[in-house]
Amino acid sequence: MHDEKGVTPQSEDFSRWYIDTIRKADLMDYSPVRGCIVFKPDGYELWERIQAGLDKRFKETGHRNAYFPMLVPESFFQKEKDHVEGFNPELPWVTEAGGEQLEERLALRPTSETIIGHMYSQWIQSYRDLPVLINQWANVFRWEKRTFPFLRTSEFLWQEGHTAHATEEEARRETMQMLEIYRDFVESELAIPVWTGEKTPSERFAGAVQTYSIEAMMKDGKALQAGTSHYLGQNFAKAFDIQFLDRDNQRKYVHTTSWGASTRLIGALIMVHGDDQGLVLPPRLAPVQVIMIPVGPPKKRKDVMGPFDRIFETLKQAGIRVKADLRDESPGWKFNEWEMRGVPLRIELGPRDVENNQCVLARRDTGEKLTVPLDKVLETVQSLLDTEIQKNLFRMAVDFRDRHSHLDLETLDDLQQHIAASSERGEPAGWMLAGWCGSDACEAKVKEETKFTSRNIPFHPPEEKKRCLVCGDSARHTVWFARAY
Amino acid sequence: MHDEKGVTPQSEDFSRWYIDTIRKADLMDYSPVRGCIVFKPDGYELWERIQAGLDKRFKETGHRNAYFPMLVPESFFQKEKDHVEGFNPELPWVTEAGGEQLEERLALRPTSETIIGHMYSQWIQSYRDLPVLINQWANVFRWEKRTFPFLRTSEFLWQEGHTAHATEEEARRETMQMLEIYRDFVESELAIPVWTGEKTPSERFAGAVQTYSIEAMMKDGKALQAGTSHYLGQNFAKAFDIQFLDRDNQRKYVHTTSWGASTRLIGALIMVHGDDQGLVLPPRLAPVQVIMIPVGPPKKRKDVMGPFDRIFETLKQAGIRVKADLRDESPGWKFNEWEMRGVPLRIELGPRDVENNQCVLARRDTGEKLTVPLDKVLETVQSLLDTEIQKNLFRMAVDFRDRHSHLDLETLDDLQQHIAASSERGEPAGWMLAGWCGSDACEAKVKEETKFTSRNIPFHPPEEKKRCLVCGDSARHTVWFARAY
Repeated sequence: MHDEKGVTPQSEDFSRWYIDTIRKADLMDYSPVRGCIVFKPDGYELWERIQAGLDKRFKETGHRNAYFPMLVPESFFQKEKDHVEGFNPELPWVTEAGGEQLEERLALRPTSETIIGHMYSQWIQSYRDLPVLINQWANVFRWEKRTFPFLRTSEFLWQEGHTAHATEEEARRETMQMLEIYRDFVESELAIPVWTGEKTPSERFAGAVQTYSIEAMMKDGKALQAGTSHYLGQNFAKAFDIQFLDRDNQRKYVHTTSWGASTRLIGALIMVHGDDQGLVLPPRLAPVQVIMIPVGPPKKRKDVMGPFDRIFETLKQAGIRVKADLRDESPGWKFNEWEMRGVPLRIELGPRDVENNQCVLARRDTGEKLTVPLDKVLETVQSLLDTEIQKNLFRMAVDFRDRHSHLDLETLDDLQQHIAASSERGEPAGWMLAGWCGSDACEAKVKEETKFTSRNIPFHPPEEKKRCLVCGDSARHTVWFARAY
Repeated sequence: MHDEKGVTPQSEDFSRWYIDTIRKADLMDYSPVRGCIVFKPDGYELWERIQAGLDKRFKETGHRNAYFPMLVPESFFQKEKDHVEGFNPELPWVTEAGGEQLEERLALRPTSETIIGHMYSQWIQSYRDLPVLINQWANVFRWEKRTFPFLRTSEFLWQEGHTAHATEEEARRETMQMLEIYRDFVESELAIPVWTGEKTPSERFAGAVQTYSIEAMMKDGKALQAGTSHYLGQNFAKAFDIQFLDRDNQRKYVHTTSWGASTRLIGALIMVHGDDQGLVLPPRLAPVQVIMIPVGPPKKRKDVMGPFDRIFETLKQAGIRVKADLRDESPGWKFNEWEMRGVPLRIELGPRDVENNQCVLARRDTGEKLTVPLDKVLETVQSLLDTEIQKNLFRMAVDFRDRHSHLDLETLDDLQQHIAASSERGEPAGWMLAGWCGSDACEAKVKEETKFTSRNIPFHPPEEKKRCLVCGDSARHTVWFARAY
């Protein structure tokens, strides 16, 4: 861990920068199981904070947690045609257990619509049983050919909400409410700006009537789907026979939704805010918000430690997540270490500072150093963490995104030229806002020729496009296209 | 759910009482996957509270959470001889994934010593890397032939701590510290008295040098192992080559520990406190601590609701988990419902109460009703929840346990006669405190003849026994014997 070499610069090789950063910040390790990673404590703690923030919002909106079996009988997947087609190629199967061959193979869940649909069919009899608003925190499996830590692994951690409603209207409202919860959480806590919108049919969740997503831009200009919310209509209700007796004495199928966010969010956090010094964590999510480091000659340390401890206690009492680094290493080495780990704010205190009744605050986001009177430390730290740094990170991410969002490209040709030119300049190609006629063929053509895929049809696009980027027919939708993780 | 029939009385059939109770209280459901249950929201919420209480204690003692892959390559199990023998018969295996046969089978973890041992061998190089103090919250699998909800299922939820230390002494101290954390948590939050002690060799965790446990008595007199802490010595360190360079420049194997508690604790909670009306939850763990129910004629409801809402708000503001039941059902029906769900305290408020500036508190643990002036409700509720009810439940459980702990039986013969006599009287046989010579044969004989197994060798037995209950030789240990879940 004490390797002094820095990380590969982002501009040189973004993927290597990412791997270097997460390894040096000790967030994960590779495992001997194909495509599976270990979430080390510093990485897992980010997930714990993401869990806490989402879980609170889910409970505030009336959802409760439950836990369903991880193993799903093969026959369950057969019941919803699109669902089995979508997931079958990626499933790991248990075929033996307790020393015997199983009569029916059991899949390791890739998502739980089927097993939960089965249970709901038994729990829901009457309109009085509705809505059912359940969330599950769980591990899921998708046997990926190419894996990338946090973003694409054979096992990952997530939450999956599954709700059942009496009416389409209510289910659609739930779908939108959860999308909005994702947006709010990711923007306000992770400081990541996202576009909310609808997925095109080709990018829909297997079995959904409509899929909505939040999409974020990483610092290499690629897109990352950071959360999805699906209106499933009556597809799973019919496949699993989830019917209820309504007030009008008619038996009806329920309308269901599902929505999920995963440990991918850790990857997004890193790729949106990180820089060539390593991680940059937004204060609201950072496990350590303030690192305190004594500076100056060690023999004068005794004069420093009194005020040092008082600052530490003041911040701690105020609920700030503060840590003191008193190890026998040079201040410079420690500065590097905690910058690399993304701590939002550093406090330096040396003998001269003590004489002058002041300390130095160093911001991770801007590199700025501020000299602050000791009796103003708490309020300065609070205002930096709560508003300035958190907001600045969000603003910088918006700026980056907008700088790399191309509204001026009109055709597939434009896009191809732009990609070539960006590549030549060694710059991210970013995203293209494009008109789209709505045909699968035009969408597929963009992907074939550029590897750009439709991200979503934003609810509030920066402008409306008139012509399909491929065929030139009049556009039915304005769509974000980008390369995606 | 609105079936009016009560639960089977405990005295008639304890297992049926248990199943009736957890079904009527809506804690779980059976699933279509063999031996796997669904943790429904009311059951899962108990687990969330257990998690929160344990997680806090783990973190306060310097442990951090991480997450390791669920799939464990077959070869890993082969590395520790006792471990593979212990767990092999119960493993489910993934043999196919992503449309291909795997070259090596992958087990669904029954516990994670092997995969974590492998990772630790890479993370630990120097004494500076020690201790490693990691915990994992996870699902685990043991393909059980006979299953029983919460107590024995093919998939269950648990935490497993895995630590590595430079010295035996430190590892042993950790083993004891975690056992003590379990004892403290289970006694103070779940109000379940336990015996802490060491397991006999035949009951040790597969691969451990020594296993310690906390053992609790259920209301049918059977024992339930409610948490275990293992000193693993250097067994896993040698199997997985976890070595470090010590201060003296020698390469040494680390000493490891592991410790776990699981969703079994939900079962223990129910079987220790429940009664013929259903669940009884200790206030510190109860998801709902106070249920408020308006009583009296519905047409006078408007006079009641003002004070009713004020009490509700006062309790809520004070951090009490209070819920109001305003459904259109009779008060009596609601009383039953919430008694069955184990809510510790009920508040009834009717028009006459309002006239007299009072309300009625009904305790779930004793059935007592108290009339309390409205301006004393908060302090009365707080004192009932925080001390009286919580302590009374613990005291009642201690009383029950001590009444069914038999210190006066000396021989296997005595035990057999006692079991026969108890069975005739329709009473729990309870536990026997016995001397034991230390031989496997004598221990095995007790099991063969009575189905009683050694629970643990308590650190502080109520008395020391002199003679082995089977061979009559002088006793090396004083042991609790009991039938166990």
